[in-house]
Amino acid sequence: MATVAVQSFVSAPLQIPKITQFKIGICQLKVTTEKSANIFNARSLIQAAAEQGASLILLPEMWNCPYSTDLFAKFAEDFSDIDSAPSLLMLSKVASSLGVTIIGGSIPEKDAGELYNSCPVFGPDGELKAKHRKIHLFDMGKPLPGEVQFKESDIISAGEKPTVVDTDFGRIGIGICHDIRFPELAMSYRARGAHLICYPGAFNMSTGATLWELEQRTRAVDNQLYVASCSPSRDSAGSYMIWGHSTVVGPMGEIIATTGHEEAVLIAEIDYAAIQWTRESLPLESQKPNDIYQFVDLLRKSPNS
Amino acid sequence: MATVAVQSFVSAPLQIPKITQFKIGICQLKVTTEKSANIFNARSLIQAAAEQGASLILLPEMWNCPYSTDLFAKFAEDFSDIDSAPSLLMLSKVASSLGVTIIGGSIPEKDAGELYNSCPVFGPDGELKAKHRKIHLFDMGKPLPGEVQFKESDIISAGEKPTVVDTDFGRIGIGICHDIRFPELAMSYRARGAHLICYPGAFNMSTGATLWELEQRTRAVDNQLYVASCSPSRDSAGSYMIWGHSTVVGPMGEIIATTGHEEAVLIAEIDYAAIQWTRESLPLESQKPNDIYQFVDLLRKSPNS
Repeated sequence: MATVAVQSFVSAPLQIPKITQFKIGICQLKVTTEKSANIFNARSLIQAAAEQGASLILLPEMWNCPYSTDLFAKFAEDFSDIDSAPSLLMLSKVASSLGVTIIGGSIPEKDAGELYNSCPVFGPDGELKAKHRKIHLFDMGKPLPGEVQFKESDIISAGEKPTVVDTDFGRIGIGICHDIRFPELAMSYRARGAHLICYPGAFNMSTGATLWELEQRTRAVDNQLYVASCSPSRDSAGSYMIWGHSTVVGPMGEIIATTGHEEAVLIAEIDYAAIQWTRESLPLESQKPNDIYQFVDLLRKSPNS
Repeated sequence: MATVAVQSFVSAPLQIPKITQFKIGICQLKVTTEKSANIFNARSLIQAAAEQGASLILLPEMWNCPYSTDLFAKFAEDFSDIDSAPSLLMLSKVASSLGVTIIGGSIPEKDAGELYNSCPVFGPDGELKAKHRKIHLFDMGKPLPGEVQFKESDIISAGEKPTVVDTDFGRIGIGICHDIRFPELAMSYRARGAHLICYPGAFNMSTGATLWELEQRTRAVDNQLYVASCSPSRDSAGSYMIWGHSTVVGPMGEIIATTGHEEAVLIAEIDYAAIQWTRESLPLESQKPNDIYQFVDLLRKSPNS
C-alpha cells in the first residue's frame, strides 16, 4: 500500500483528423528465415494494399524475423540509423513512393545493448513518426498441459510508455500482441483521444482460438473506437504456430473485416463518424463515477495529450 | 484536471473459501405483471435448482417486476423491513429452508423516497448478507435507428459503491446489467479478491446479440475469475424485449454453461482451482507496470478488503 498523488484528467476531446473515411490495408505476411525475402515480400504486399486503395497500412508483429527468441538479435535493427536498417529503410521508401502511412508491425530493435520488440510508424513523407516498444512482454508462468514454455523477457526488454501518433488518419494508439491483454493500455489510448488502436500480434493456436477476436472486440466496444490487428500467416517459419486471423473491428464491437490463417491482404473501410454516433448513442465516458474508481495514466502530460 | 491523492493497493490475495467446488443454479425466470405470481414462480425455480444440486443460486435483474420504469415504484420493497417485503421474505425463507445461498438478481428498492435497482444476497441462514445497488444506470443518449429511448435514471437512483460479499462459495462481486459495460467495476472486484462476479442483467435484443456474451467472457478473462449472468426470459411481460441467454464463464473465458431465451434452470459446475492455475499459467496481475498506469478503487479501505 502507498499513497500516490496523480493527475486526474478527463478524456481528451476527439479531434477531427484530416481524413475521416479511408481504407486500411492489413498485410498478413508469411515470414521466412530469410530477412531479405521478408523485406521483399512485405514491400510487395504493401504495394498490393495500396493498389486496392489502402492509404493506411498495418504490418504484423515480427514480420522481418521468425517469432523465435534465439533469432531476434540476428534480425534486429537500429532505429536511430535507418540508412543501415534494411527493413526500416524499405518502409520509409515505400511509404513515400506510394504516399501511404505505415504502422510497421514490429521488428526486433537493438539499442544500447538491449533488444526491444518495436513498432515503427512511417508517414507518407517517408519519415519515422513514432516508435512503440512492446510494454507487456509475453512471459508464461507454469505452462498448462499441452502448452510450450515461452518467456519473451529472457531476450527482450520492455517498453516504458504508451504510444499515440497523430497521422492524417487520426490519432492512433499502438499495442503489440500481449499488450492487448491489458485493458488499461486501451483505456489510456481512449483517454488520450485515439480514434484507432493498432495491434500487430502473433497469438498462438490456443490463445488465438480463445482470445484473439474476443480481446479486439472488447477493446473496441469498451472504448468506443476502432481496433485493427495484424498477424503473420500460420505457415510462417519457426516452431511457434501462429493463429492468423487479422481483423478490423468497429466501435460497436462489430467485425468489419477478417481473414483466415493464410497470407493475405485485407482491406477494410473505416469511417470515424461511427465513433461519434456510438458515443452519442451511449455516452459510457460520462457514465463513469469518478468518485468510485479512476483509471490513472501516470505518464499523460496534459488534458489534451 | 485535478491532483488527487489515492491509496494504491495491490490485489488482495485470493482466500480459500469453505467450499471450492460446487454447482451454481441460474434461474432464467419468466416475469409477469403479477408480483405474487413472480414470487411463486421464483420460489419454484429456486427449488428446482436446489433439487438439481445447486447450492449457490442466481436470479435475474428485476425478476419480481416487468422491466418498465413506470412499474418500478409499484413493485418496490423496503430492504430494511423484510417482514413487509414479500419478495425478500420469500428469498429469506427459501434460502434457509433449502440451505442455499441466493444472489437475488434485482428488484426495485424503495428507501427514503428514492428508488434503486438492488440485488439482495441471502445466506443459508436466511439472513440478508449484502445488497448491491446498480451503479451504472442504463441511460441511452441519442438512439440509433431502430432503438427505443430508455433512461433508467428518470426513475432510479444510482448506487454509490461496489459490493463484494463473503459466502461459503467464495468472495462474490455483484454488478447489475449495465454495470458489466464498465471494466473498472470488474477490475475493482478482482483487486478485492473476488472468485466470482454475478451479473443479473436484462440486456435488450440489440445489445444482447452484440455484447452480452462478449462482455461476460471479457470480464472473466481479463480478471482471471468466474462470471455468471442471469437474465429474465424473452417472453417476460412488457414492451422491452429481453435477450435471455444466461451464461456461466470460466477464468479462461470459456463458456461453461449457457441457455436460450426461454424460461430455464441452468446448472453449472464451478471449481475455483481453475482460477489458481489460470493465474499461475499467465500471471497478468504481476505483469502490469504500475509506473505507467494504475487502476484506483477509491472506496477500497485496506489491502485485504
